Amino acid sequence: MSKPLRLGIAGLGTVGAGVVQILRKQAALLETRTGRPLVITAVSARSKEKDRGVNLSSYAWENDPVALAKREDVDVFVELMGGEDGPAKDATDAALALGKDVITANKAMLAMHGQALAEAAEAKGSVIKYEAAVAGGIPVIKALGEGLAGNQITRVMGVMNGSCNYILTRMEDAGLPYADVFAEADGLGYLEADPQLDVGGIDAAHKLAILSSLAFGTQVNFAGIELEGIERVSIEDIRAAADMGYKIKLLGVAQVTGRGLEQRMQPCLVPDTSPLGQLSGGTNMIVLEGDAVGQIVLRGAGAGAGPTASAVLSDICDIARGYRGPTFGQPATTLTAAVPATSQRPAAYYLRMTLMDKPGALAKVASVLGDAAVSIDRMRQYGHVKDRAQVLIVTHKTTRADIDHALAAFGATSVVSGDPVALRIEEV
Amino acid sequence: MSKPLRLGIAGLGTVGAGVVQILRKQAALLETRTGRPLVITAVSARSKEKDRGVNLSSYAWENDPVALAKREDVDVFVELMGGEDGPAKDATDAALALGKDVITANKAMLAMHGQALAEAAEAKGSVIKYEAAVAGGIPVIKALGEGLAGNQITRVMGVMNGSCNYILTRMEDAGLPYADVFAEADGLGYLEADPQLDVGGIDAAHKLAILSSLAFGTQVNFAGIELEGIERVSIEDIRAAADMGYKIKLLGVAQVTGRGLEQRMQPCLVPDTSPLGQLSGGTNMIVLEGDAVGQIVLRGAGAGAGPTASAVLSDICDIARGYRGPTFGQPATTLTAAVPATSQRPAAYYLRMTLMDKPGALAKVASVLGDAAVSIDRMRQYGHVKDRAQVLIVTHKTTRADIDHALAAFGATSVVSGDPVALRIEEV
Repeated sequence: MSKPLRLGIAGLGTVGAGVVQILRKQAALLETRTGRPLVITAVSARSKEKDRGVNLSSYAWENDPVALAKREDVDVFVELMGGEDGPAKDATDAALALGKDVITANKAMLAMHGQALAEAAEAKGSVIKYEAAVAGGIPVIKALGEGLAGNQITRVMGVMNGSCNYILTRMEDAGLPYADVFAEADGLGYLEADPQLDVGGIDAAHKLAILSSLAFGTQVNFAGIELEGIERVSIEDIRAAADMGYKIKLLGVAQVTGRGLEQRMQPCLVPDTSPLGQLSGGTNMIVLEGDAVGQIVLRGAGAGAGPTASAVLSDICDIARGYRGPTFGQPATTLTAAVPATSQRPAAYYLRMTLMDKPGALAKVASVLGDAAVSIDRMRQYGHVKDRAQVLIVTHKTTRADIDHALAAFGATSVVSGDPVALRIEEV
Repeated sequence: MSKPLRLGIAGLGTVGAGVVQILRKQAALLETRTGRPLVITAVSARSKEKDRGVNLSSYAWENDPVALAKREDVDVFVELMGGEDGPAKDATDAALALGKDVITANKAMLAMHGQALAEAAEAKGSVIKYEAAVAGGIPVIKALGEGLAGNQITRVMGVMNGSCNYILTRMEDAGLPYADVFAEADGLGYLEADPQLDVGGIDAAHKLAILSSLAFGTQVNFAGIELEGIERVSIEDIRAAADMGYKIKLLGVAQVTGRGLEQRMQPCLVPDTSPLGQLSGGTNMIVLEGDAVGQIVLRGAGAGAGPTASAVLSDICDIARGYRGPTFGQPATTLTAAVPATSQRPAAYYLRMTLMDKPGALAKVASVLGDAAVSIDRMRQYGHVKDRAQVLIVTHKTTRADIDHALAAFGATSVVSGDPVALRIEEV
């Protein structure tokens, strides 16, 4: 019989408890699949007393995750605590310093310290696996880093935060404003303790930064992401977009152009008939595009104890089987520094603005757009309410710079009331 | 620098040429990703003279794939010829006998000889990789065997033959009968040289047999598949199904129940709003369900030079990186003999029949169904044409046995003209 793989698990929230449960319930199956017993030797969490619905009595207990990571009877340190710094980072550093392998679900830590961690791991010949850090149960890290390893990746795109997608879907279905649905989701426990991580797009951007590195061979660069959350998405825009055949999604997009690495996480419009447009509720979807494979779409639960534990188990099985690769698909020392580029690739844009009831108002708007070299594909004006009319415009492909010129010029027309809304329409 | 991985490629059709092309074009990238040079040392195909659009001059040429497989300068035999027996099988056997690794896109060979091949490989410590054999560029073998390795798989399902899906979609979009669209697809070169492999569901069933083994730890059992092609799907049924909110798909479904391993490849109805229902044209979609992960959906091109070559490259990179696992996810000697079971799990059924214009005709149909314990969920009768009326029925969940009882009894009613159509409605 092969040597057991000895796991130390730090963090026993729903995911950690889920991992323990699977390792206990499927012990025989996992041993058959990997060729060796997978055993938990020690665990660590904040409170030893809390009932987590799993029997922990046969595992050594450590109050300190750093002590857990350093234990001689731990081969693989499984970090399920979260937090970009603090105990999770300290314990991961300790494990790597001793040449141990690390499995983590911690997207924030990887997005902030991925390069240093990968270099530390590879210097010691150990591996960091993180399937659970992106899109929960969807095996996207494996698909991108291994399944599409023969491709030059051309674009990575997706809905990577289920809570945001739930909120946007619910706003549309129930016709409720953002604030109401936010409060509802928070009450149901759908949001992180700091909800800004979700609705500000930060959690999703952490994931995008990780995918970018793996896709394009660049060092993780969270700071280079153009980031905008969903807080300013209004029910009016959701309705107007629907009226024009689109859905609004918090969409992450990464691609390399001649100008550098473009990474965007922001509300975008996608056609309502596209797979991304049809994604409702808390589900995640990742779209991977490569020069050989074309487009691959992966869809599944992006969060939850079972799906996330499934991803952690995938990493455990990989290590047990001896599948040891560099963290970001190629040696960390070969990853290039990303040159962040704001997107100047042309795209169609959705514009919504409020026009005052003045003669020639629409002509002025059209002329501003024309002067900015923005041409109009479709336009709708809705009836006047209290001397104000809503105008929706879908432009032909244009650059963000030209749109910004037009937006700046609307102010001087004295016919546009308030700030127009401009959202990119992503080709999917 | 690490030792080069030396590849011998047998079969230089579009896929083989595509693999050569990627290995040449992405040589530097692939070496960075895998840590070693990937080099082609020899190739083999039927005709040395044919122009394949790739430069083969630096590779040794073998007319005989067996000789290629045996070459001392070949570490990995890449089999892209196809055919369940004959040269492909002979050369694969020869490679395995010498302890070489094998990469193959040959679903027929694996569906027929998978168990013996896996045992032969594992006895010598070599590996067989076959990402390209199922669903083209979709990395489903990796997702199922590695990404979901922590799961007890509960169901595998999907549209696995793009040509059939193209035909069914085209019939609906153009309102054309099967024979016309078949001729059109054949003329466009969309079908195998023996079109029965496609439209008879055989090619798709080969893929299902492979997925079943990987999912359930059973020996590949192609013979145990309930198999029905799309030749009898009529434009009337496609229209009627659409009318009731469904699409007809050639759907593969595998699951283990108390009775054994159910494997079906047959035309089924799926809700038109489901991901499977919305899949049009030649795209493939695989749905994987596991006890922890829930449902994962994978979508992409199921055929074509680029996507299939992408899958072959994934296997090449895996072997270069030293990712060596058993063929079907666990040692071949531990795979259990599948007990084939025809599905008796209850499902809703779609029935379409032609009623003669006789008093009480519909009552007789209803009474036959009632006697067979089949209850009706929805029913539609269309106006009489020449003393005949079409009746569509969607049943509540019932067993295939009960449906078969009802179908047998309709004949004795003297009000049903011809054979009624009965198609399973799959829950997706």
